[in-house]
Order: sequence, then C-alpha cells, then structure tokens
Amino acid sequence: MINKKFLLAGRPIGRPIEDGDFEYQEEELRGIEEGEVLLENLVIEFQPAQKGWMEQISNYVAPLEIGDVMRCNGIARVLESKSNNFKSGDIVTGQTCWQSHPILSDSELEIIEDPSAATLHLGALGGTGLTAYFGVTKISKPKPGDTVVITGAAGGVGSIAGQIFKISGCKVIGIAGGKEKCKILLDEFGFDAAIDYKSEDINKSLKELCPEGINVLYDNVGGRILNDCLAHIAMNARIAICGIISRHKTDNANFGPENYANLIFKRASMEGFIVIDFMSEADTARKKLKEWISDGKIKCKEDIQEGFENIPNTLKRLFDGKNQGKQLLRISD
Amino acid sequence: MINKKFLLAGRPIGRPIEDGDFEYQEEELRGIEEGEVLLENLVIEFQPAQKGWMEQISNYVAPLEIGDVMRCNGIARVLESKSNNFKSGDIVTGQTCWQSHPILSDSELEIIEDPSAATLHLGALGGTGLTAYFGVTKISKPKPGDTVVITGAAGGVGSIAGQIFKISGCKVIGIAGGKEKCKILLDEFGFDAAIDYKSEDINKSLKELCPEGINVLYDNVGGRILNDCLAHIAMNARIAICGIISRHKTDNANFGPENYANLIFKRASMEGFIVIDFMSEADTARKKLKEWISDGKIKCKEDIQEGFENIPNTLKRLFDGKNQGKQLLRISD
Repeated sequence: MINKKFLLAGRPIGRPIEDGDFEYQEEELRGIEEGEVLLENLVIEFQPAQKGWMEQISNYVAPLEIGDVMRCNGIARVLESKSNNFKSGDIVTGQTCWQSHPILSDSELEIIEDPSAATLHLGALGGTGLTAYFGVTKISKPKPGDTVVITGAAGGVGSIAGQIFKISGCKVIGIAGGKEKCKILLDEFGFDAAIDYKSEDINKSLKELCPEGINVLYDNVGGRILNDCLAHIAMNARIAICGIISRHKTDNANFGPENYANLIFKRASMEGFIVIDFMSEADTARKKLKEWISDGKIKCKEDIQEGFENIPNTLKRLFDGKNQGKQLLRISD
Repeated sequence: MINKKFLLAGRPIGRPIEDGDFEYQEEELRGIEEGEVLLENLVIEFQPAQKGWMEQISNYVAPLEIGDVMRCNGIARVLESKSNNFKSGDIVTGQTCWQSHPILSDSELEIIEDPSAATLHLGALGGTGLTAYFGVTKISKPKPGDTVVITGAAGGVGSIAGQIFKISGCKVIGIAGGKEKCKILLDEFGFDAAIDYKSEDINKSLKELCPEGINVLYDNVGGRILNDCLAHIAMNARIAICGIISRHKTDNANFGPENYANLIFKRASMEGFIVIDFMSEADTARKKLKEWISDGKIKCKEDIQEGFENIPNTLKRLFDGKNQGKQLLRISD
C-alpha cells in the first residue's frame, strides 16, 4: 500500500509560506509492529501554530526537522491493528500528520466514541476549544458585564472564545476581516457587535462600541489591531495574548504595540499562555464544552476543504484570513 | 515679597522638552488667608512623569494647563502661617511647584519631623521610594533566587528597586547608560552585575548574565532596551512596567516591543502600575523603607543641582540620562 505524504522542505521565517516549503512524496508502507496501528487519515486540522513549528520558533513542542512529515492533528480510521486497544474500523484521533496512511503507536491515539461528531475533536473539543476555554477562564477571568473584544474573532479559537464570554455574561465585540465574517459573528455566534477591520476605522468603532473601554481583550492577531485595541482599554484591563497571526504578514512584521504604554495609565496586564500548560484540566474543560455544545450555547463552524493535494494551500488560507471557523480538510470519507 | 515662578508654556508632545515650554514670571505675593501657609521653597524633586503632566497624557493626576505653575513636590520652610497645624520655621513637604514662595492650604502639607533627613521625603521616602517599593512587592513579586533585571537602574526608582530586590534575595542586574553609572550600581547599591547599554551589546551581556533567563524585569525605560530584555525572559516571567523614559527620545518614539511575542512562548505577564493606587499602604511602606535605610540596606543617592534659574534644565537632565540617583535641585538653604 502507498502512503502519500508532504514533508517539511523549507522554513518560512519572516515570510509567508510558499509551495516550496513542502515536498510531496509517496512511499511503500512497511508492515506494522506489535503495539502499532495502521490508519487511513480522514480529516486533518490546521492552526496558526503550525507555521511556528515550521519555523522552529516554538519551544513548547518537539522540533520539526526538515524532511519530517508535516505535523498536524487528525481523525483516522483503523485499517489494521496490532494493539489490543484498537480494532479495524475504529475511528481515532491523534497526531496523524500530512499523510494518507499513518502508522502510529497505540499510545499516541485516542478512540472517538461518537464518530458522527468526530470533527468536533479537531475543533471545539480539541486544542482549539481548549485554547479558547483556558484563555477565557484562566487568563481573561471575565466578570459579568465586562466589555470584551476578540481579535481574529471568526477563526476557530476566536469564535469559541467569544461564545464562552457570552456564557459568562459579557458584552462581546468581535474584530474580523470582511463583512461576511462579521455577519457570521452576529448571526451564528451571537456576538453583540462586530467590527470589519478591512472596511471600518477600528479606532472609531471601538470608541463607539466600548464607551467605557475594553475590560478584556482576547488577542489572536497582534500587530496594528492589538495596538489600536490597547488605545481603548479600561482601567485594570486584562489582555490575553493567545496568538499573533499578523506577524506572518509582511506589513506587520516586526511591529510592536507602542500603545503598551497604556498598561501603565490603565494599570492593566497582558499575559501570554499556551494551552498545553492546562492539560491536566482538559477533561473538565471538555465536559463543559460538550455540555455547552449540546445545549446549543456554543455553535461550531467548520471550514472543510477537500483533497490531499490541497493540504499546503489550505494551511495558507489561515494566514490569508480566508477561513470561517475551524479550518479542516477532508482526505477521505 | 516677590514670588519667582516657572509657568507651563508649551506641551512637548512627541519631542524633547525645550526652553520655550516654560515661561519665567515674577509676581508680588498676596497675603495669606485662614488655613493657608506661606512657604519658602528649599529643595524640589524631578521625575519623568512630569513630562507626561506637561503633555497632559497622564490621566491619573489633575490636568496641568498652559499658564499653570509647573508642578513638582518639594521641601519648604514655613515663613508665615494662618493654620494651627504649622508654625513659622517648620519644615514641610508637599506639592510646592516651580516657585520660590508657594502659598498652600494646610491640608496639602505634611510636617517633616527630622529636618536633617528632609530630602529623603523627596526620594526614598517619597513617591520615588514608594514606587520602587510597590512595584517590587505588589507587581514583581520576587522570590529568593530570582534573576532580576532593572532598566534605568541608576535612577531614583531603579536604584531603590534594585536594593529591595537584593533584600528579597534576588540576583540583581542593572542596565544603565555609561561606565560611571554602572560602577555606582556595583559599588554603592550592591547590584550583582551592571550592563552599560551605551558601550555593551545588551543581548550578549544578558545571555551571559542570565543563563536561565530573566525571572523579573523591572522596566523604567521601554523602547529598544525593553525589547531586548523580552528576548531573554524565563518561563513565567513577570514584567513590571514602571515607566517609559525612552519614549521621550526621538529614535525610540513610537517604538513598540515586537518581542512581546515571547509573552506567549514563556507564559509571561506584563503589568503596568501607578504608585497612587497603593497609597492606603504608604505608611507601612515608609516604615519599612526607613528601617532599611537606617540599617544601611538601602543607600540613597541624590543628584542635587543648584539655583532657581536652572530648574528647566534640571528636568531635561532626566531625559538625557544625566542624573545619578534621585534628581533634586536646591532653591534655598
């Protein structure tokens, strides 16, 4: 059997991802050993952190070397198993990477009990949902009545974070690129207001929408948008730094938020975090998220692309701001 | 009797302070009213926040209008009193401003019990010492063994903060401009190491001096030096933003710290503060500071200029990095 795969071939440091950063290869699959499982990769997920892994700037995961199969999480079907924990036909989740037929050790996989909602394990119940959950509950610490601004609000993390802030009784304003995304924030995710940074004057809109200032800023974007938001923080504001997707754009490269000066005048704090630090509480978080999803309090939007050959371009969608909700790609049904 | 004074005449927004920002005037003093005290201003203090007051960007003090006497704290002698709380000859402290003979209401003044140590009330026992004390104890929260870096370390706040960190059992590294200031940090204030940003490669020195990274950064400077320090923070670092004196220099204007990205990778937090929020605990803090001073654990260095006419130029010394320790000016003996 042939395994199709994309290997890391270049490091996109200080520049956008290019086609040449990946190399397509096919290989004849070896037989599996005791404790291993042969999988058919069904759906994979994309996240901005992947560019960091490619650049090797992230120090919280094992380094990704040139020539390694590109890393990602996915959902897969067991084709053959030499493990007592999995049998042929099981649907599992794990680090399946950019390949059609991963062979993984059974300790690296988790079974998915309800295959009809399998993709939730890549979004709202996966790292994306947990990042939103812990970023809100551990870092942002919202109080009912707080005015919250979320940047990158229509993305996987932003859209879930916003809905958790709503559950917490906050007024939630999302910043996103384009009228369509803003409409989704209001109509699907129940945000109180949306700002289209592509067509609006952010400063003017923030002034109108946050007359008392921003109590909590949940920032996925950084750069000029973070800087504009900092100009509008309220006294004792909390700023959760979840990601900096704008740093991958040329016009925002090396842009530091000069308005951090407002941290002094407003006695505010800015804190960075990574979801893996909270994994000991992941079960509790997943239980909560499941409950909110089944109660209809959290809606999950998935942007599902198709086709193995489109994997590299689908990663680029994140950095071009094209995805609406969690970016996924279906390799096989 | 004639009162000499300097009035605010210009707002140095986005530029250094110029001579034309102040207007010298003399006025015939009026008689004092019930509850008022006529003073002879003896020594006044300077702090970077004064430029913010001139620009009216500071929102935590009453606005300073064009034509107002320039604001500062000072030590003064009572010449005439219509208050039961003060008598002629008393030495007092309060907001005496840039004038030779202030008339103040008795509620605005505090008596100084020990006139021989009067200037301490403008430095280590005044706003400067309290800023250092609360910035260390409330924001930086040092643990014994922490590696601490202080920027603007030879200034009024920096030098006291560094000594409080030493008392707290930390390894203290100061960054200052010039070999002479660095020598003072080591010889007089007992810092463990000093970096001269004018002649050294800060990144190289930080790497050598903080092999495990910076646990606490106490930043008075901002700009490029803050950015360099952010590149060397340790996991869970705390960054206290006390001031941004570099924003008054043209080559640092509008410079935001792009390395704030490290807040994510290092799960670090950056917090701004203003001393006035902690004034309910000022008595406890002053008692501690007095104790440390009399035990020789905190040494106070004063940079005392002379002459009323030199007041504006003495303020400029702060922004040119000329002061060593707390900047004062003696108006009268």
